[in-house]
Amino acid sequence: MFNAPALVAEITALSDAYEKALGENDLSALDAFFYEGAETVRYGVGENLYGAEEIAAFRRARSGGSPPRRVLRRAITTWGETSAVVSLEFQREGSSRIGRQMQTWVLTEQGWKIIAAHVSLMAERPETSSPAG
Amino acid sequence: MFNAPALVAEITALSDAYEKALGENDLSALDAFFYEGAETVRYGVGENLYGAEEIAAFRRARSGGSPPRRVLRRAITTWGETSAVVSLEFQREGSSRIGRQMQTWVLTEQGWKIIAAHVSLMAERPETSSPAG
Repeated sequence: MFNAPALVAEITALSDAYEKALGENDLSALDAFFYEGAETVRYGVGENLYGAEEIAAFRRARSGGSPPRRVLRRAITTWGETSAVVSLEFQREGSSRIGRQMQTWVLTEQGWKIIAAHVSLMAERPETSSPAG
Repeated sequence: MFNAPALVAEITALSDAYEKALGENDLSALDAFFYEGAETVRYGVGENLYGAEEIAAFRRARSGGSPPRRVLRRAITTWGETSAVVSLEFQREGSSRIGRQMQTWVLTEQGWKIIAAHVSLMAERPETSSPAG
């Protein structure tokens, strides 16, 4: 049920297109990647956004867009014919911290859309011996 | 296609059960919530884990389990009959920071399983005016 090759290829191309739009701070393209409804959730590095309207408003309030970043690793998992998760690690220019972005994509009547996303910067140390500060 | 009430109720119960197992550091229960395959990804507060084996090993290496926490807000979105995302905000005891947990659930032959999860502590400020440090 997982990772039908044609579907993985399709989601890979969507993820590439998303990274390009993010790098260019292409607001209308970024809006269009997200499902336009109240159901959509985006947890960003420093904000929790519920619904497509809050997400679009944040993009417009964000000075300069997302900092330039390099993708270090990407894992794509699909199941069935209408669902996928893209998990990737990134590093922002000039930062030593590892970022993570996870997106859940759904095939809707409007095409493939992100229904949930979570972006964060990883704590400096694993939480094996103690919780992060 | 979104949020069929019976499915939302089922996923809500699973999320409650997950929080209970996490609070009790019930390792076998926690293992069983995740899909047992190489496809499963878990980004924790301070670690990036790929595959069920890495996730289970982290749980066993984690001294004392997850810190006690309170759920502040939870949003559940389902689509079709076999997929769901649970997004929740939490606060750990003794910490002022807001945590976020996002889980993507899939109905497999072994029942409902988490195929991807991302847990993080939000930066102190939104990234509207400048990137987080």
